[in-house]
Amino acid sequence: MHTYPALLQLVNKKITETSFGSNPKELYDPITYMMGLGGKRLRPVLTLMACDLFKVDVNKALDAALAIEVFHNFTLVHDDIMDNAPLRRGQETVFQKWSMPVAILSGDLMLIRSIDLLAKTETNQFSKLLSVFNDTAAKVCEGQQIDMNFETSNKVSQADYIEMITLKTAVLLGASLEIGARIANASHADAANLYEFGKCIGIAFQIQDDILDSFGETAAVGKRIGGDIASNKKTLLLIELLDSVHKDDLKLLQNLLAEPNEETKIAGVLSLYQKYQIQAFAEAQKQQYLDTAFHHLQAVSVDAENKQVLIDTARELMSREN
Amino acid sequence: MHTYPALLQLVNKKITETSFGSNPKELYDPITYMMGLGGKRLRPVLTLMACDLFKVDVNKALDAALAIEVFHNFTLVHDDIMDNAPLRRGQETVFQKWSMPVAILSGDLMLIRSIDLLAKTETNQFSKLLSVFNDTAAKVCEGQQIDMNFETSNKVSQADYIEMITLKTAVLLGASLEIGARIANASHADAANLYEFGKCIGIAFQIQDDILDSFGETAAVGKRIGGDIASNKKTLLLIELLDSVHKDDLKLLQNLLAEPNEETKIAGVLSLYQKYQIQAFAEAQKQQYLDTAFHHLQAVSVDAENKQVLIDTARELMSREN
Repeated sequence: MHTYPALLQLVNKKITETSFGSNPKELYDPITYMMGLGGKRLRPVLTLMACDLFKVDVNKALDAALAIEVFHNFTLVHDDIMDNAPLRRGQETVFQKWSMPVAILSGDLMLIRSIDLLAKTETNQFSKLLSVFNDTAAKVCEGQQIDMNFETSNKVSQADYIEMITLKTAVLLGASLEIGARIANASHADAANLYEFGKCIGIAFQIQDDILDSFGETAAVGKRIGGDIASNKKTLLLIELLDSVHKDDLKLLQNLLAEPNEETKIAGVLSLYQKYQIQAFAEAQKQQYLDTAFHHLQAVSVDAENKQVLIDTARELMSREN
Repeated sequence: MHTYPALLQLVNKKITETSFGSNPKELYDPITYMMGLGGKRLRPVLTLMACDLFKVDVNKALDAALAIEVFHNFTLVHDDIMDNAPLRRGQETVFQKWSMPVAILSGDLMLIRSIDLLAKTETNQFSKLLSVFNDTAAKVCEGQQIDMNFETSNKVSQADYIEMITLKTAVLLGASLEIGARIANASHADAANLYEFGKCIGIAFQIQDDILDSFGETAAVGKRIGGDIASNKKTLLLIELLDSVHKDDLKLLQNLLAEPNEETKIAGVLSLYQKYQIQAFAEAQKQQYLDTAFHHLQAVSVDAENKQVLIDTARELMSREN
């Protein structure tokens, strides 16, 4: 089986060799810029790993892997406009560096090019690939809209939250694996189990992200602790706190959510998180999704040793402390 | 052969019967709203006409026809954000009625759904359909970017202008016809001739749009005459005037382009248009593209009488005086 670094190298080589177009340059330069910002390329690597799992040449899945990475970057370009985000991977976002119209349009073109790339895959299952890809793409848009709705909603349940991160983040990890498996002509059951594995890893990863924002180590995170708390973001932690707070503490919590001094607010909410053991709750939730993920991976009908690289990748994702 | 009104009814029925999704409603309501704004549905009707031309049941092309209409409306939703346009077909634009993020995201989803619809077509030529559709989609984005570039460019040639309107508007008319023809299993030559017919009609139509903005009848146009002149828009008329103006009039023209009083500006430029016979020039250009269009239609290997509905549609498009 190929290692993560080996597959990452394949993906990066493919990105470097791919031309997305050149004229007009205002449209194509942002695409080249965005695709060159780097990152761990998790999704395309998962596609190749899923193909590799069935001992099929990973090069067969390389166009589809790139399609998924281009699609993912399209969502980042458009999300950065909606979130008014100045930075992405430490560099200026496309809308900041060029303009909002350029970011809309080059994002649109990335979505179009992602379908082009998927269509280059040599397979007799293309209609299935396209339907997995497009269903997932629609879900990612739905997740982003639900996330935006949360900002103005007073009633977000844990189920709402899990649905949102599932759509916005997790299904694309599932689809990355399913598409790799389908290119390798895996059985329907194996493809479905790999989809669920990726989806559950994605949910666990997102819960961990919430935990680290409140309990990570500042220096390592590279951003201040408590950003989610400061902005009243409806994370799993805050939703659980709102669900479990005694009425004696309710007034205190409401005051903290309205507190203008950030330091006071973050310290106060963290202290309530401690009192109500919110970190332990979130860790348990995360573990539950991880267990489900590994259960699905176990059910995939290939030798256990072939799965090790996927297990290691999942553990690596979960081991980061920042 | 089916008439335009009969095919329009088919398209509108299909739109009414199609659900694009429902949850979250902030994402799907704008799509239903936009698709319900009406319009002449030229592109999907052309797809059905091209299929009909080869005596193949137009219902076979209905999903693809709707795909093209949804794609077209996606471009309108995103263009309206970029152009900061408050109205579309007399109603509020999506970004105005909801918000910029909602308009970006529901537009993205329309693009995704358009591919879904195309994929529902029963055909053994799907990869060809998808490549025509996606190549065209990329060109439409390129055209929009080039159009935006024109706003700040001092040097726009007639060739640049024709390239821009070809990409932004005309290729989608060509693709609408080509896709209908390919679904009817037309020969490559027939499909290519229909593409060129649609493309040339599209260019002629756009030139006519420029002419009407300066020489149409105000009341009928429903908007004031001279909007393009007032905004220094690089239309074929202005480009030709800049190309042909004698050096005696150059200073006058430069002053008019910088003139703050709109009435003075429009009257002054119109008088130069008259002096240099710009309308006649533009009419001749339009006629040249129309001739080329009909030449390509003539080359399509079906009975001449079957082509009449396409000829009538093109003439109808060109006969409007507003």
